[in-house]
Amino acid sequence: MKPGALARELARIVGQEGVLWRAEDLMLYEYDALSSLRQPDAVVFPRTTEQVVQIAKLATRENLPVVPRGAGTGLSGGAVASEGGILVGFSRMKEILEIDIESQRARVQPGVVNLDLSLAVSDQGYYFAPDPSSQKACTIGGNVAENAGGPHTLAYGVTTNHVLGLEVVLPGGEVIHTGAKSWDRPGYDLTGLVVGSEGTLGIVTEITVRLSRKPEAAKTLLAVYDRVLDATRTVVAITARGITPAALEMMDGFTLRAVEQATHAGYPMDCAAVLLIEVEGMREAAEEQASEIEAVCNENHARAVRRARTDEERDLLWKGRRTDEERDLLWKGRKNAFGAVGRISPSYYVQDGVIPRTRLPEMLEFIGEVEKRYDLRIGNIFHAGDGNLHPLIMFDARDQGQSQRVLKAAQEIITKCVEMGGSITGEHGVGIEKIELMPLVFSPDDLDLMRRIKEVFNPQGRLNPGKLLPAGRMCGELRVQVSTGGER
Amino acid sequence: MKPGALARELARIVGQEGVLWRAEDLMLYEYDALSSLRQPDAVVFPRTTEQVVQIAKLATRENLPVVPRGAGTGLSGGAVASEGGILVGFSRMKEILEIDIESQRARVQPGVVNLDLSLAVSDQGYYFAPDPSSQKACTIGGNVAENAGGPHTLAYGVTTNHVLGLEVVLPGGEVIHTGAKSWDRPGYDLTGLVVGSEGTLGIVTEITVRLSRKPEAAKTLLAVYDRVLDATRTVVAITARGITPAALEMMDGFTLRAVEQATHAGYPMDCAAVLLIEVEGMREAAEEQASEIEAVCNENHARAVRRARTDEERDLLWKGRRTDEERDLLWKGRKNAFGAVGRISPSYYVQDGVIPRTRLPEMLEFIGEVEKRYDLRIGNIFHAGDGNLHPLIMFDARDQGQSQRVLKAAQEIITKCVEMGGSITGEHGVGIEKIELMPLVFSPDDLDLMRRIKEVFNPQGRLNPGKLLPAGRMCGELRVQVSTGGER
Repeated sequence: MKPGALARELARIVGQEGVLWRAEDLMLYEYDALSSLRQPDAVVFPRTTEQVVQIAKLATRENLPVVPRGAGTGLSGGAVASEGGILVGFSRMKEILEIDIESQRARVQPGVVNLDLSLAVSDQGYYFAPDPSSQKACTIGGNVAENAGGPHTLAYGVTTNHVLGLEVVLPGGEVIHTGAKSWDRPGYDLTGLVVGSEGTLGIVTEITVRLSRKPEAAKTLLAVYDRVLDATRTVVAITARGITPAALEMMDGFTLRAVEQATHAGYPMDCAAVLLIEVEGMREAAEEQASEIEAVCNENHARAVRRARTDEERDLLWKGRRTDEERDLLWKGRKNAFGAVGRISPSYYVQDGVIPRTRLPEMLEFIGEVEKRYDLRIGNIFHAGDGNLHPLIMFDARDQGQSQRVLKAAQEIITKCVEMGGSITGEHGVGIEKIELMPLVFSPDDLDLMRRIKEVFNPQGRLNPGKLLPAGRMCGELRVQVSTGGER
Repeated sequence: MKPGALARELARIVGQEGVLWRAEDLMLYEYDALSSLRQPDAVVFPRTTEQVVQIAKLATRENLPVVPRGAGTGLSGGAVASEGGILVGFSRMKEILEIDIESQRARVQPGVVNLDLSLAVSDQGYYFAPDPSSQKACTIGGNVAENAGGPHTLAYGVTTNHVLGLEVVLPGGEVIHTGAKSWDRPGYDLTGLVVGSEGTLGIVTEITVRLSRKPEAAKTLLAVYDRVLDATRTVVAITARGITPAALEMMDGFTLRAVEQATHAGYPMDCAAVLLIEVEGMREAAEEQASEIEAVCNENHARAVRRARTDEERDLLWKGRRTDEERDLLWKGRKNAFGAVGRISPSYYVQDGVIPRTRLPEMLEFIGEVEKRYDLRIGNIFHAGDGNLHPLIMFDARDQGQSQRVLKAAQEIITKCVEMGGSITGEHGVGIEKIELMPLVFSPDDLDLMRRIKEVFNPQGRLNPGKLLPAGRMCGELRVQVSTGGER
């Protein structure tokens, strides 16, 4: 089918204004930090489940690939149409369908922006706990596809821990409903199976999520270190004490100087590392935990530990005087860190690995060695509490030799993650980027079982082809492409 | 293959002392509150994964069903060999293989008794959060099969929320490993798929679980009511305030009088209902929440609200004097409630349904109507906070007419659960008991998808046959058998 004819068929389903098919319009959609080698044949923006069903049926009839796409912030190539076909954009399915505060549930369309759901229930004292750093842009549908994490994963888990039910359109156009509003459900847990399946099992058209009660108080600490090792040791020590902060983030000096120059959030310019630590709960409990954490930081040679001013404290101390809220500023800095690094390096490659947090000090040393050996600059920004690493390898993509060194360095780091008992991705998924690394963490039997499960849902393999599961035996090599942005 | 010959083959794998095959020895295993119409051909007790692999291969060769069984406390027929074959008992695979306190993980064999894991890590300040009322007997392997809940589900979720990885033997003898120690994992979430699959997808031989830090303080409240409706309204009101207690249990007057006569736990004998409410956390926070809950109880016309004495308070108030710990006593009463009811009724049928907790008052009224209409006595004992009902229908199994009325009453209650937006089982699984009710909650497409997933793991259907998934279109009827015990 020619692009023009396909576009006309799609327009019959969603209307003229819901279809893109000219090459210049499609350019935006060949990219999610990882560039696709092909453009989609068309991009379509449905508004209803019924329209998605029609699109699936059209694709079946024409034997075309179908690729669902949220905001395209995934970074691993999950949302690009690398084999052409129809790319289904969800930016017009962004309605919050139901908010049920009494049951602490919401039902949303997949295109709802993550932060928008929290804002919608904020006045009633609730929020949606998964908060990827890209939460101002990324969609809940995309979070479901990638099983997204974020800084608060440590305390509240990843997306799958907050999703209770799904409506899913299968490639042939059948609609299934998984899960329920309650915790336990009879039958197989299809909700859990679809969450994190990177769009290879079905097209999610509706999501029932759990809302969480906002804590009474949040205390944010900034611990400043002259040695990176002391910061990583603090991470291990805090959790060894049985304290689970709501967030426990680490940035090294290089990264935070880039952040500070870009956002003026108030980070110190002359240190080796900082920890951004948050505890939440009832006021007295949060206060007590913050003090305990402060003590642990000091025992581990923090140069200084600052408590951020929060709304509440500001009200007490500077009543009537308008000040910036320091906690928000610090988080803004952290959440825009990747953009900040983008200002100082022509290109950078964001790696996403995970290790047991007890191995953090050792891992940092290893990354330092890799940096020297390949003569590269690597910034470190971690969801440290849950061992999720995001080394940022700076380079200039125009320099072929340098690009090759970046690939090798990234490969060494990710292989080390697996050796340490970790895994090849902490939160961003396999997509295209890491498909060839899957044999590092799964046996041929494991992968075969996954392929057979995929066949149940997606028998012709037309749904998001070329993602997540390697087609056959692979060599365990990174197929890296240049990344120039995105928040992790 | 004759039973004697099968037993000899099995003995070659596990040794003479690990096989039962004489009819009188098998009797114990034809029952898990729901009686099987058939005995297994043999019961075998492996000690290692390798032995399970050998058993699976033998069963494949001889084309025999294989049924895994934990402690047999499931109540829905999941652990009986209703089509004969080899019943694999896990009582000798009960080793705790690894405790990793720093990462808050443990790796256990499936036969480990639920409570034993908590006891093993208690000194270090940790516990395993899922605590079914049968936790002194039930095994973690069985908890995984049934995705077991318990009184603390409200705050901490069900078994699947605490399981991070599995070793699974497939029916052909292949061993797969799912999950990891970290939160997120690449690939499909096979761990979540196997948890709750009631032994129909594979034989679980190893389980990696998350350990939870024991809270600093637990406050237990007993609220006493003269009207059942006030108790159910309190449940709704507590959660509407955004308070999530660790546990929120309800017993009606009939049930708690049976409990009190059996356990002398200190429950009042003359009331219509009690709520047993527990809050956990840091000392000050728990104290504050307890006070807030007390106020809500009083607003909803509690006759009295008692705070249980705990270890800690006892130490302060009765230093040196040995008293029973009231909190433990109250919980002991609750957890032994079914046994207590067994003392006063020749038979009883424990129903297990779930509804949105906001519908509790309405549901209680409905159960009252059913009770009258069918001239039966129904006790009510609920995990009220998460809407998990356990109506206890008392009867005399020798009276055919009465047994028929019990069936009809149970059917009406469970159908009402579904109508209210709930489901056919809260925590005990489908097993044989509710297999014919699955079409009440799943569409033919949903069930078909589940059947095809089952075929991927269990292509010949020899693994726990006749459980969970109806073979074809079903009539939506309960296939009830007489229950005389078990804890929910």
